[in-house]
Amino acid sequence: MKVLVFGGTGTIGKAIMSELDHHELVSVGKTRGDLQVDITDDASVTGLFEKIGRVDAIVSATGHIHFGPLTETTAEQFSLGLLNKVLGQVRLALIGQRYLNEGGSITLTSGICTHEPIAQGSNATTANAAIDAFVLAAATELKHGQRINAVSPSIVTESSAAYGPFFPGFETVDAAKVAKAYRRSVDGVQTGRSYRIW
Amino acid sequence: MKVLVFGGTGTIGKAIMSELDHHELVSVGKTRGDLQVDITDDASVTGLFEKIGRVDAIVSATGHIHFGPLTETTAEQFSLGLLNKVLGQVRLALIGQRYLNEGGSITLTSGICTHEPIAQGSNATTANAAIDAFVLAAATELKHGQRINAVSPSIVTESSAAYGPFFPGFETVDAAKVAKAYRRSVDGVQTGRSYRIW
Repeated sequence: MKVLVFGGTGTIGKAIMSELDHHELVSVGKTRGDLQVDITDDASVTGLFEKIGRVDAIVSATGHIHFGPLTETTAEQFSLGLLNKVLGQVRLALIGQRYLNEGGSITLTSGICTHEPIAQGSNATTANAAIDAFVLAAATELKHGQRINAVSPSIVTESSAAYGPFFPGFETVDAAKVAKAYRRSVDGVQTGRSYRIW
Repeated sequence: MKVLVFGGTGTIGKAIMSELDHHELVSVGKTRGDLQVDITDDASVTGLFEKIGRVDAIVSATGHIHFGPLTETTAEQFSLGLLNKVLGQVRLALIGQRYLNEGGSITLTSGICTHEPIAQGSNATTANAAIDAFVLAAATELKHGQRINAVSPSIVTESSAAYGPFFPGFETVDAAKVAKAYRRSVDGVQTGRSYRIW
């Protein structure tokens, strides 16, 4: 299979690249990876797919959100998660479906905050829930046997030095374990699922 | 209590106005109601609150989403639900919290599509889930005893002529029944809830 991995150089992305190394992988990043793309821009995403051609799987482990106290958050700050993590990944699905082979899969990334709010994380909870919901709905409308799932990881062990204090009492999960869920989506048969890795 | 009702002239909004008529109500709309506001614009929302002053409850039954087949949807179309129904209502909460009295409540509107996708409704499912998630997270961070909930209605009986074909086999609920959930939020004690009225 030819698999595009958006965010393939990140903490989870590297683990995905390793877990899926039996496939032909193309790593895509904003500034790193084999190819570059701006997920907030239609023309950039379309240009990438035009260059790559048809693929068998699209994996996204990318997207930014705003962290900060709700009482100090502005709507503009809050828009980051909606326009980057949500619409950025949705854009990959909306455009990518046209370049995705019969039976191909799309796998997006949400996160545990959908169900478990953390301090300063209202934007994370909102954005992650939106991604989980999008795959639930999109799975009912995709054509040509295409599938779509999300992976919802808890805090990743490799990131706990940076983010651990925001997740008191949360068990961390190794990136390698999280990566298996992407493989379940890419190499499996399910659709409309959000795999909770926690 | 002084209660601001955004979307107070809509189908659900009118029922809310009736259910909450024991309070001092101010109906706010884009073009109708006692006062006008553009929920997509910070300055417009802040200007409204500056004019009204402090309130005891903020109720929102407003917000637009895109309906259309996923295979034909553009990211720009998809942004409607994210920037209007989600960020529009989130903006009312973010700005409104500064004008909300001790113990006051914010009540937003999501919808059954969060959990029950319908044809052409991927934007609805995504936006509604985002609102449900936002109130879950925001409830943990609001100060001064402020509360926040969402009401998640099924298709409203009064709207079934227009939207019924998109909800095959769904039981409709009368707007008056939906309105009771807003009262439960405004006059009750709960926070972080999404009231499923279906």
